[in-house]
Amino acid sequence: MDDIRDEVLDQLKHMQFLIDENQLDDAKKIFLTLHDFEQATIFVNLNATHRHALIKILSDQELADVFDDIDEEPKKIIGLLEELSPKRASHILNLMYTDNVADILSVMEIEELATYLSLMPKDDAEELRQLINYEDQTAGALLATEYLAIEPDCTIGEALQRVKQEANNAETIYYVYVVDDTEKLVGVVSLRDLLTNPDDYLLKTITNTRIISVHPADDQEDVAKMMRDYDFLALPVTDVFNHMIGIITIDDIVDVMDEEAISDYSGLAGVNVDQGTINPFLAAAKRLPWLITLLFLGMSTASLISHYETLVAKASVLAVFISLITGTAGNAGTQSLAVAVRGIALDEEKSMLKMIFTEILIGLLIGTITGLTIFIIVGIWQANWLLGFIIGISMMAAITVANVAGALIPLGMNKIGVDPAVASGPFISTLSDLTSVLIYFSIAQIFLSNFMNHH
Amino acid sequence: MDDIRDEVLDQLKHMQFLIDENQLDDAKKIFLTLHDFEQATIFVNLNATHRHALIKILSDQELADVFDDIDEEPKKIIGLLEELSPKRASHILNLMYTDNVADILSVMEIEELATYLSLMPKDDAEELRQLINYEDQTAGALLATEYLAIEPDCTIGEALQRVKQEANNAETIYYVYVVDDTEKLVGVVSLRDLLTNPDDYLLKTITNTRIISVHPADDQEDVAKMMRDYDFLALPVTDVFNHMIGIITIDDIVDVMDEEAISDYSGLAGVNVDQGTINPFLAAAKRLPWLITLLFLGMSTASLISHYETLVAKASVLAVFISLITGTAGNAGTQSLAVAVRGIALDEEKSMLKMIFTEILIGLLIGTITGLTIFIIVGIWQANWLLGFIIGISMMAAITVANVAGALIPLGMNKIGVDPAVASGPFISTLSDLTSVLIYFSIAQIFLSNFMNHH
Repeated sequence: MDDIRDEVLDQLKHMQFLIDENQLDDAKKIFLTLHDFEQATIFVNLNATHRHALIKILSDQELADVFDDIDEEPKKIIGLLEELSPKRASHILNLMYTDNVADILSVMEIEELATYLSLMPKDDAEELRQLINYEDQTAGALLATEYLAIEPDCTIGEALQRVKQEANNAETIYYVYVVDDTEKLVGVVSLRDLLTNPDDYLLKTITNTRIISVHPADDQEDVAKMMRDYDFLALPVTDVFNHMIGIITIDDIVDVMDEEAISDYSGLAGVNVDQGTINPFLAAAKRLPWLITLLFLGMSTASLISHYETLVAKASVLAVFISLITGTAGNAGTQSLAVAVRGIALDEEKSMLKMIFTEILIGLLIGTITGLTIFIIVGIWQANWLLGFIIGISMMAAITVANVAGALIPLGMNKIGVDPAVASGPFISTLSDLTSVLIYFSIAQIFLSNFMNHH
Repeated sequence: MDDIRDEVLDQLKHMQFLIDENQLDDAKKIFLTLHDFEQATIFVNLNATHRHALIKILSDQELADVFDDIDEEPKKIIGLLEELSPKRASHILNLMYTDNVADILSVMEIEELATYLSLMPKDDAEELRQLINYEDQTAGALLATEYLAIEPDCTIGEALQRVKQEANNAETIYYVYVVDDTEKLVGVVSLRDLLTNPDDYLLKTITNTRIISVHPADDQEDVAKMMRDYDFLALPVTDVFNHMIGIITIDDIVDVMDEEAISDYSGLAGVNVDQGTINPFLAAAKRLPWLITLLFLGMSTASLISHYETLVAKASVLAVFISLITGTAGNAGTQSLAVAVRGIALDEEKSMLKMIFTEILIGLLIGTITGLTIFIIVGIWQANWLLGFIIGISMMAAITVANVAGALIPLGMNKIGVDPAVASGPFISTLSDLTSVLIYFSIAQIFLSNFMNHH
């Protein structure tokens, strides 16, 4: 795989060389033989001078294709647009696919946005203004308006003609959307079906009217799930009256899946893992807020233990098992948290009560086995079966509580509309430190008198 | 979104009703209007009697389409195949896409496999035998052999004719692979390009010879990354001599991305989160191995603390801060682990040494700030600045060590060829409990004499 990336690097150097040598025709010719992704990678990685030369020799449409494939933060793309004259930048934005443009415009300063939109044809500007309003992470934020809509009374031959005409503008030509004269979506025809049926048939005779569509406000995760299940290459987006608004293509869904996977992983770790090659100071600054927050939560555990300081002074052996109990309970809590977050994401129609009941049962099972194990180990090791009993029973209770908390917290967050994926392993283990210590020392206190006699 | 799933349920009930009423023609007609995914969902969820009726009225090709879309464990699909006669099952397997068939056959009992293959045409059986040999999670395990290969000297019109003929067999018709007379891949033409160029042009004039392909042994994660970058709908798989072996389509990559995301998330949590609706006993059995393993690692921490029991007996206040130090260091370690695992997955060409150096620096930064915070808090709270200093400096050292360990462990695993994504948060926090306790009590021991005077 790496050789291909290296190949892109070679092409980049070759482009620099050709530009330096002023062989601009060759530079253009070679650049245009590259795949869109490679063009975009080279465009972004050239220095400003070389890029400026490249910008000069490419047409607006060619530049729009490059910008369509730049896989960088919108802010960075805005910076690249600013290397062009406002008029040209506006024209390029107008030639790009609307979903990509909306991504960029939605993070733009208001004055700059107004400038670019004012330089576009009124209708296009109006369309973009609407797209910008869709909330991030919804179907609306992913939709492109470049789709093929054809009336049901066309013949297949006519439809194929339209496909050929619009092949260079539509974001996908692999589906044709059949739309009636009120703009309502009545069905879908795949290009495969167009090609395998006689040209003189009417489009409506082969239209699949069992429409699978999404609404602009639908969560991008649900859209991704639907596309994964149905194996579609594009999904139509419709309003509540079934009017066609746009399409979402599989390449955007692939990006969504990647984004969601990173965000879930980051949530569980309690750190944004998608920090790229930033410097250690920035990295530390990103990790510290969670750590310091949890430090204060950890302080309540410390202050709880300090209430039992006299107990510890009398029976210092209790200190030996603090980290074992808190650690094991924290591990169990992290497991149950992850299972719950995943369960909620799958939306398995399970009732909250049932999930919690299941986790109580799992917690008791795990707790009993773990507790029994540690009871035997401590009993033998310390030659003190009462101590073993205290540790074992505390372990069992602490694990059960951590297990239930691990499920309850994401379920509760989901209930109040917060994405449960931000509930982190570090959070649940720090929280369960508190409950575990409370359980441990309460139980130890109860048995203290007996215990002191045995020790 | 849920209404559509409910709709499938409605269709399922409707199918049951029609079959019960013996309206089999209607049942068949309605079943075939459904999307492939819906057909598969209904097929799997019917009871055996109803499914048997459905099997009777569907043709082999229709059943093959259903089986192609069943999104269940291969073992479950084998069970469904066993409801058919071996001859019919074998024929259906032969009509399915080879990538799906290979998935199923690769987990089949050897006798059953031999039976099915013996009932197939020799060439097809041979092809499948080869596909089964590719290792799981590689490009080979994903490839299908149903692609469109055309010679470069065809005209575009002839190529389009071929596309129409093979449209019902090829897994994708959106790319045509241009292959010379030695079966070598010389380039790719998209259906879009075929449709927008004159019919009498030669295929080779519009062939994109800048081939992006993968080899059968390539890791599926790398294939997914490549498809995500290039936004392709299918990728050719070639051998080292550039002979065309098959294609991998985007729908399989979407499944791979989902699978990889779940596996990374599971790895970090130390539990397989993809356990579906299994019962609490099975769930507990799946979570226990890690927990018990970590319990024993935790025991070494306990036994380390027990070495310092006399120290704790003299200065019981030390017990108060055990969980705060181990917890915070564990949190920092989990963060650095997640960042490292992600960094390795991105293959950012960073050197190992640089990554470790960066984590040491980040650890020192985070450790210093956290240590300073806790120094002030403890100093004020306990009115004991020496104790504050012991806790603060221990915290700093413990965080730095946990941070470095969090990066070192996945890097080391990657070095010896183990997938670093299985390194879990629970593991790193249990391990860092040990190092943190060691650091904490060593430092406390050093300052003990001074400390006792102040206390």
